[in-house]
Amino acid sequence: MALVNYIDEAQAEPRVKAVFDDIKQTRQVETINNFWLALANDPAALERTWSSLKAIMSPDGELDPLTKELIYVAVSITNGCDYCTVSHLAAARKAGLTVGQRNELLAIVGMANETNRLVQGYQVDIDPALHSYAAGL
Amino acid sequence: MALVNYIDEAQAEPRVKAVFDDIKQTRQVETINNFWLALANDPAALERTWSSLKAIMSPDGELDPLTKELIYVAVSITNGCDYCTVSHLAAARKAGLTVGQRNELLAIVGMANETNRLVQGYQVDIDPALHSYAAGL
Amino acid sequence: MALVNYIDEAQAEPRVKAVFDDIKQTRQVETINNFWLALANDPAALERTWSSLKAIMSPDGELDPLTKELIYVAVSITNGCDYCTVSHLAAARKAGLTVGQRNELLAIVGMANETNRLVQGYQVDIDPALHSYAAGL
Amino acid sequence: MALVNYIDEAQAEPRVKAVFDDIKQTRQVETINNFWLALANDPAALERTWSSLKAIMSPDGELDPLTKELIYVAVSITNGCDYCTVSHLAAARKAGLTVGQRNELLAIVGMANETNRLVQGYQVDIDPALHSYAAGL
Amino acid sequence: MALVNYIDEAQAEPRVKAVFDDIKQTRQVETINNFWLALANDPAALERTWSSLKAIMSPDGELDPLTKELIYVAVSITNGCDYCTVSHLAAARKAGLTVGQRNELLAIVGMANETNRLVQGYQVDIDPALHSYAAGL
Amino acid sequence: MALVNYIDEAQAEPRVKAVFDDIKQTRQVETINNFWLALANDPAALERTWSSLKAIMSPDGELDPLTKELIYVAVSITNGCDYCTVSHLAAARKAGLTVGQRNELLAIVGMANETNRLVQGYQVDIDPALHSYAAGL
Repeated sequence: MALVNYIDEAQAEPRVKAVFDDIKQTRQVETINNFWLALANDPAALERTWSSLKAIMSPDGELDPLTKELIYVAVSITNGCDYCTVSHLAAARKAGLTVGQRNELLAIVGMANETNRLVQGYQVDIDPALHSYAAGL
Repeated sequence: MALVNYIDEAQAEPRVKAVFDDIKQTRQVETINNFWLALANDPAALERTWSSLKAIMSPDGELDPLTKELIYVAVSITNGCDYCTVSHLAAARKAGLTVGQRNELLAIVGMANETNRLVQGYQVDIDPALHSYAAGL
Repeated sequence: MALVNYIDEAQAEPRVKAVFDDIKQTRQVETINNFWLALANDPAALERTWSSLKAIMSPDGELDPLTKELIYVAVSITNGCDYCTVSHLAAARKAGLTVGQRNELLAIVGMANETNRLVQGYQVDIDPALHSYAAGL
Repeated sequence: MALVNYIDEAQAEPRVKAVFDDIKQTRQVETINNFWLALANDPAALERTWSSLKAIMSPDGELDPLTKELIYVAVSITNGCDYCTVSHLAAARKAGLTVGQRNELLAIVGMANETNRLVQGYQVDIDPALHSYAAGL
Repeated sequence: MALVNYIDEAQAEPRVKAVFDDIKQTRQVETINNFWLALANDPAALERTWSSLKAIMSPDGELDPLTKELIYVAVSITNGCDYCTVSHLAAARKAGLTVGQRNELLAIVGMANETNRLVQGYQVDIDPALHSYAAGL
Repeated sequence: MALVNYIDEAQAEPRVKAVFDDIKQTRQVETINNFWLALANDPAALERTWSSLKAIMSPDGELDPLTKELIYVAVSITNGCDYCTVSHLAAARKAGLTVGQRNELLAIVGMANETNRLVQGYQVDIDPALHSYAAGL
């Protein structure tokens, strides 16, 4: 249960209202999610966070919107954030996620968490050739 | 520095050798990464892990190979696994990763980690509509 | 929902009662939080944990009580512990936390989580000068 | 070892150069840390991240600069980010950190990590009174 | 609240039914836990995961079943997974867990989380002798 | 590389010396590990931490010393603490760990990390019967 009041759109101060309007316009939605309603208790944080998120998740990037949401979900699951997992799975669905893709996403996230820990347990050394190749991008 | 010896391919027991051969064949590579050379100290774990990874990361899925690697990297960064971050960025490059995509990936991972924690700090409640939509897939 | 019964103060065994009394006296409160009521199922753990917490969070240290609670909240958010986030935000409020400080705390926690992961993604090397300076304290 | 080249200040493109100059001016330093030199491979991310960090860590806030750095270190330790732990301990020292404060910080971070997990193990329920008090700020 | 329907055993497709039957037979239980009912939405993942779990948690290993469940709980607590903590504590109880052992388990998990972070905060170097000894197994 | 000097046993102040002597006596060893040499920069933390660790890891408990070390390693791997993973695997070896047990430990840790995240991804609800059984201990 939230530790702050959700800011009422109708009574939001102008700078908050401006962000809310931009969220609705950018996402073509009619309601604002609880995350933004909560964050609006700190208008400067709301502006900063929305501005960064809008730029990072922009459909104009080199990664398509669905891929971006899959990455967001992968992080959210790994951090155990229920809100973020649910809300970004919803966003992924809106961007076209299929059931099969959702299942693959979850399987990869599970597998990665497993091998991450096997690597740590055996204390595996980075292969110089892999490092060079990754760094040579 | 690894806590086990890397298993020498030339002297590997048959069931380990079979996995190594399948890795080389499947990935069209000539050398086996340290992760598998370390895991080969537990042949049953090697077989299980490779078998699962091969299925999950298969190019026959609904997500393309590059997207799968991006998800793997997102988890690995969030878990702070250097080996996994480097090796799956290398795999992503092999699957076609561009510099721009790499930068977008890292920016999304950073952003998701930030908002995951803002959600936790404000204890934001899941929007029923988002849950329904995500669950309605 | 807790996996143990909360120990009834009135019926607690003497060593548990002694800790409960010390908590009330030290914090000038009349009720014991669920955390201690649960931990009292293991009296030795209760004694050890309270004894350490009392010393570490003592107002006699070089950091003031509010700062100590802010640090506690920062860890709790990052670990995704709802109970701990809520209870230490309550403790911080008791120690004088303002709304503005709460907002700054959450913004810093979010930002730190973001840059922690950017560092991991780019595999940034520690600057020798920074290490020397931090180690020279 | 970093996966990108550190951008040479002397040859940085104008928008990168502008951020570097602002970092030096704001912090009154003569060199740029590796984090920013790495992030400069993505000029837009560099601008966004520095802009947010500058605002969040500003000395004009309600929390003093040392407290802000202590919060940053607490998160960084909990996430296991060596670079971030070292660099923000260095920043904390610059902001006046004493040895005694450093020791208290580390003790609180350790304690919080311990009790976070005890809470999870016993599945302790949030005390309604604590929630109300924290939410009543 | 789950994001998928729990698969009805009576109407499960044959490959799912086969796994469910094997779970019941192997564990000598009459009902299937929600985890498997959820995972059955992805039959291939259900087969893979059950097959691996069955092998890893087999009573034929060198570690006894109770010890295996304790390790599972330790990880689950550290990851903040409520479902996993509860379900594997239940499994541990079935394998003979006593109240005293449960308390010791939780105390160790708490302690390990604390010292893990103290190590990170002080950036302690691995003792060469400890590494050699651990690697010499 | 450590951020503090390792305290020289020969020149340690009396309360530090007393802890070092107790560590040597209790563990029947002749040298003190880096962790304690670093923590000795904060004598009160050294005393508290050793006192708690000595009690929690005592061979007089209901869990045997090897099992206790396995739990410690499981947490350390999941937190990505290299020092802790190595040093507690060394302690486990001293307590009798076999290669087969080490392999099983790592496999369970990997598996638990995987299923923890599958549970989070599907947002699986706790089975009431499992909760009752775990809570009925």
